[in-house]
Amino acid sequence: MSPEELALSINLVWVMLGAFLVFFMHAGFAMVESGFTRSKNTLNILMKNFLTISVSAILFFIVGYGLMFGGTMGSFIGVDGFLLSEVGDIGFFVFQAMFVATCATIMSGAVAERMKLGSYMLIVVAMTAVVYPVVGHWVWQGEGWLTNIGFSDFAGSTVVHLTGAVGALVVVLILGPRLGKYSGKKVNVIPGHNIPLGALGVFILWLGWFGFNGGSSLAADPELVPMVIGTTLLSTSAALISSAAYTKLRFKRVDASLSLNGVLAGLVGITAGCAEISLGGSIIVGLISGVILVEGIRFLDAKLKIDDPVGAITVHGLLGIWGTLAVGLFSTSTGVFYGHGLSQLGIQTVGVLAVIAWVAVTIGGFTLLLNAISPIRVAKEEEIAGLDFAEHGSNAYDFKETLLTNDDMESPATGLALADRLNNLTVSQTKSKTVQ
Amino acid sequence: MSPEELALSINLVWVMLGAFLVFFMHAGFAMVESGFTRSKNTLNILMKNFLTISVSAILFFIVGYGLMFGGTMGSFIGVDGFLLSEVGDIGFFVFQAMFVATCATIMSGAVAERMKLGSYMLIVVAMTAVVYPVVGHWVWQGEGWLTNIGFSDFAGSTVVHLTGAVGALVVVLILGPRLGKYSGKKVNVIPGHNIPLGALGVFILWLGWFGFNGGSSLAADPELVPMVIGTTLLSTSAALISSAAYTKLRFKRVDASLSLNGVLAGLVGITAGCAEISLGGSIIVGLISGVILVEGIRFLDAKLKIDDPVGAITVHGLLGIWGTLAVGLFSTSTGVFYGHGLSQLGIQTVGVLAVIAWVAVTIGGFTLLLNAISPIRVAKEEEIAGLDFAEHGSNAYDFKETLLTNDDMESPATGLALADRLNNLTVSQTKSKTVQ
Amino acid sequence: MSPEELALSINLVWVMLGAFLVFFMHAGFAMVESGFTRSKNTLNILMKNFLTISVSAILFFIVGYGLMFGGTMGSFIGVDGFLLSEVGDIGFFVFQAMFVATCATIMSGAVAERMKLGSYMLIVVAMTAVVYPVVGHWVWQGEGWLTNIGFSDFAGSTVVHLTGAVGALVVVLILGPRLGKYSGKKVNVIPGHNIPLGALGVFILWLGWFGFNGGSSLAADPELVPMVIGTTLLSTSAALISSAAYTKLRFKRVDASLSLNGVLAGLVGITAGCAEISLGGSIIVGLISGVILVEGIRFLDAKLKIDDPVGAITVHGLLGIWGTLAVGLFSTSTGVFYGHGLSQLGIQTVGVLAVIAWVAVTIGGFTLLLNAISPIRVAKEEEIAGLDFAEHGSNAYDFKETLLTNDDMESPATGLALADRLNNLTVSQTKSKTVQ
Repeated sequence: MSPEELALSINLVWVMLGAFLVFFMHAGFAMVESGFTRSKNTLNILMKNFLTISVSAILFFIVGYGLMFGGTMGSFIGVDGFLLSEVGDIGFFVFQAMFVATCATIMSGAVAERMKLGSYMLIVVAMTAVVYPVVGHWVWQGEGWLTNIGFSDFAGSTVVHLTGAVGALVVVLILGPRLGKYSGKKVNVIPGHNIPLGALGVFILWLGWFGFNGGSSLAADPELVPMVIGTTLLSTSAALISSAAYTKLRFKRVDASLSLNGVLAGLVGITAGCAEISLGGSIIVGLISGVILVEGIRFLDAKLKIDDPVGAITVHGLLGIWGTLAVGLFSTSTGVFYGHGLSQLGIQTVGVLAVIAWVAVTIGGFTLLLNAISPIRVAKEEEIAGLDFAEHGSNAYDFKETLLTNDDMESPATGLALADRLNNLTVSQTKSKTVQ
Repeated sequence: MSPEELALSINLVWVMLGAFLVFFMHAGFAMVESGFTRSKNTLNILMKNFLTISVSAILFFIVGYGLMFGGTMGSFIGVDGFLLSEVGDIGFFVFQAMFVATCATIMSGAVAERMKLGSYMLIVVAMTAVVYPVVGHWVWQGEGWLTNIGFSDFAGSTVVHLTGAVGALVVVLILGPRLGKYSGKKVNVIPGHNIPLGALGVFILWLGWFGFNGGSSLAADPELVPMVIGTTLLSTSAALISSAAYTKLRFKRVDASLSLNGVLAGLVGITAGCAEISLGGSIIVGLISGVILVEGIRFLDAKLKIDDPVGAITVHGLLGIWGTLAVGLFSTSTGVFYGHGLSQLGIQTVGVLAVIAWVAVTIGGFTLLLNAISPIRVAKEEEIAGLDFAEHGSNAYDFKETLLTNDDMESPATGLALADRLNNLTVSQTKSKTVQ
Repeated sequence: MSPEELALSINLVWVMLGAFLVFFMHAGFAMVESGFTRSKNTLNILMKNFLTISVSAILFFIVGYGLMFGGTMGSFIGVDGFLLSEVGDIGFFVFQAMFVATCATIMSGAVAERMKLGSYMLIVVAMTAVVYPVVGHWVWQGEGWLTNIGFSDFAGSTVVHLTGAVGALVVVLILGPRLGKYSGKKVNVIPGHNIPLGALGVFILWLGWFGFNGGSSLAADPELVPMVIGTTLLSTSAALISSAAYTKLRFKRVDASLSLNGVLAGLVGITAGCAEISLGGSIIVGLISGVILVEGIRFLDAKLKIDDPVGAITVHGLLGIWGTLAVGLFSTSTGVFYGHGLSQLGIQTVGVLAVIAWVAVTIGGFTLLLNAISPIRVAKEEEIAGLDFAEHGSNAYDFKETLLTNDDMESPATGLALADRLNNLTVSQTKSKTVQ
């Protein structure tokens, strides 16, 4: 094999590893979103997450890849490569296909516990088939207008995260808060039901993000890749520490949910700049990310009364903006703090504003239309009963069998004879239901 | 280093990545099987999964690798390479060792909630030491009789999944349904206890399958690998969508459990043909897989009254057959729909029938023998009490500490002094038991 | 590209894959530690795990890497490379940074359910900034005194695991057992609350360990790597089987918790020797590991009355010693059983004793100092209430919404109209609390 062929193989392995890790992020999102909401809406959230990645993968194959990476029309949108016709690099398609669902999944967390599955899926179709690919064309196709003016977003603080968060925001504004969330001036806390599951999701997201940022190099570059992984690790570590410490200062306790969201804040915050911010700089970016997260979630919740069950609008939106602007501040090649003046920061601001406008108008308009045709929100009774019951007729958990017999358990080491115990056992009825 | 040495290293990394992902599938199986069954049998299922991979890895080292990949005797069975003597490529052994347990683990889901751990393990020994390696020899050793007639099964729809499912079927037929599953003409639903855990398992299996199918290329081939990953992604996405949509049509709701099984259906359905079906073809294969899944599970349950708690026989058996036949239909090089006539479809059918016969006779005979010596099913009292209690004397969950204090919790932001709360706290007794 | 550049890229991909897997081990530790303890302390354990990896990554960047891999002062400690100045290989830093937190996280399991978060974090700082890097310098920098005498610890049975376990032991001795653990002569069992979560953690750790051991080769060597992965797989499989079988013999049941810990025992037991023990030898090492695990946990608990909630001191300490000594016995190039005499075994013993002494003195002294300034243990009332309440003012779980409506659920297939059900539904109040 020639060195060129070998290089192709090496880069393939690296990009596939990245693709697998980005795929796994969807397990992370599913666990975070279900863990941080109530147990009566868990199946619904899980189904939304699974359907999101499935629908977006197929739409990206049919139309999205062409709109995003096809030959440009006016630096605004791609116009060929649909169904991957004439597309040579299927590995690049696979990697990008794993990305698409991310911005849609961000919405699923924000709209949780009150939105119809069908309406949500229609918005996912709009987002993944058109809205996101257009943003991607502007920044990552190579001839997009944001690329042309020098906008820099290495792995997608704006392209993926801000896009998803703006979509989430406009849908949430149309949808309104969950029942019982705001009563008069009171802001009620609706706690999540399974934080360990959510924490596992955070770990999975952190892991997956190494592929999200690292794979975005598209090549196993021995100089670039370790820097990207290093800044991703350090920024995230710093953001967790700062969010934990800041909640301790602010509320006298280390708040677990906010600290876990601090991890995600640190990840989104370094995503745009992971390839051009120094290791030391990434720690500063992360420390600031953790504080933005805590204040952002409180501001949206307590001041603006925007009900975002998992904090997705703050994590992906405010931090997406912060991450994009941080390039203009901390990039060693273009940043303000390295003596390169304000021009990059200005360009980053233009990109942020353009993406906000595009997504707000398109997703906002589409959602208003949908809502006019048929309400996108479930009925009040269904929301109270839970979407698992209303939309799926089933339940996420059933611990009865354990709870009934829990006190009858013995340690394996007690030496009590099993037979004796079984004789005295209260027989628990098998819960059963009739089919057909 | 020479280009040949470099290529060795690259392929090593790819195959090891595949091996790790296939290993991780066992975590997925364990979570799916425990989540979709009752909480009183959870420890038992977990132990079966852990013991399955352990026993099969060691047996594959001692005897299985030789039977599967050793020099052939009559194109039927391998006769050397035991204990890996004279085996040069340890990386290939590692990758294949991760596969072995899969077909045995398929059985553990189907026999869940009623089979003795010891009896199950003996069947695992038979399956992984002899029955599976022989099937593998026929198809993957290079000189096996199914290879000789042109049978095609790239990553194991038949070799792994159908083999496991036929074993599961014959053991389930001998074992009978769970108590309370069928009462007269009634078919009762016994719901799973932790669907989020099961859903995480499905995500892990989907992730792992990229290694299962992708690693089966055995080389980081920049043409082949992205196609394999692409077809695996699209088939699975299509199968989830079709199973979700089909349950909506059929039952008026999107059924979460069946949709999650739809993911696995899409994976098994593309496993044989992932390297020779087009991206578009894989979507069609997946759409059909999702419908087969729903109707298959209902047919086995409601019509045949075969009690398969997690749907394993349908997922791996019916879909294993479908995936194998789909090669004869959709292969771009040999398939009916690409103008290549019926011969490949005929060959695929021969392979399916041969494997069904071999596994049914061997595992069926062995299980009947075991059951004659000592019943393979737990006593009725043990089944009612739960296998966790009966076989392990312990419980999978204990949420009492949380349930007791749940209402006493405050939000970190309320500002109530901790000391005041602690003074009023109902002290929960530490649940304790005596040792020795 | 030149062959040398290609080799750099290949090795980069391998080491990054290893780094990601080692990172993911922290998710495994978090799930094991929270699953095997009580639900009232779960948030606290999760926060300790997240903060541990974050603090240690940043400290390793600032100071730890320099102390560990900087130019040596007397073969005892590194004296340059702080803040990675003049450090060229950032990939190596990333891989090593993922390791650092492991030894600290080992402590978090042993001190669970009774130690203040703040005090724990200070000990993490001491451990990861100084104590562990010094041990690492002795063994892995290349000019350390243990390297000079021929000490062999390929992936860290001593460097990582024994170091963490000795730290855990001395802190636990100062901290004392949990309330209710030992009452007079009685030894009480305090069962874990979520064993499936713990089992998932064990699977994640096993997966991650392939990166821990495999990545320690630092190159995608087609000879070495498959052997390392093979011994890791077989040792662990053997240890699970032996611990399961041994508990069956000893307690008449297959104990699930001990068997799951048996997996970790097999992993720690082969970590030092995974590169120089044969595949057959690794099975023997693993079989012994499983028995040491069961007897070690019982001895520490029942005889020494050392309260280690998750068995970390046995798993990482006793098995860390066993793994290190096993090199002297089973190494094909230096071991007693291969006719190489006792000298390597003697050297291994020196290394073990030196590390025990160093860690016990430094961590012990530091912990005594901390405890003198302010008790490292939470107040009795806080321990009874649970650390989640006392330190975080919140709860890890809330299943009320599910438990309330569980019996109202229907199967998706029953055909009962949803509207009828909703009309009769008992409306469950949204549990809400006031903010600000």
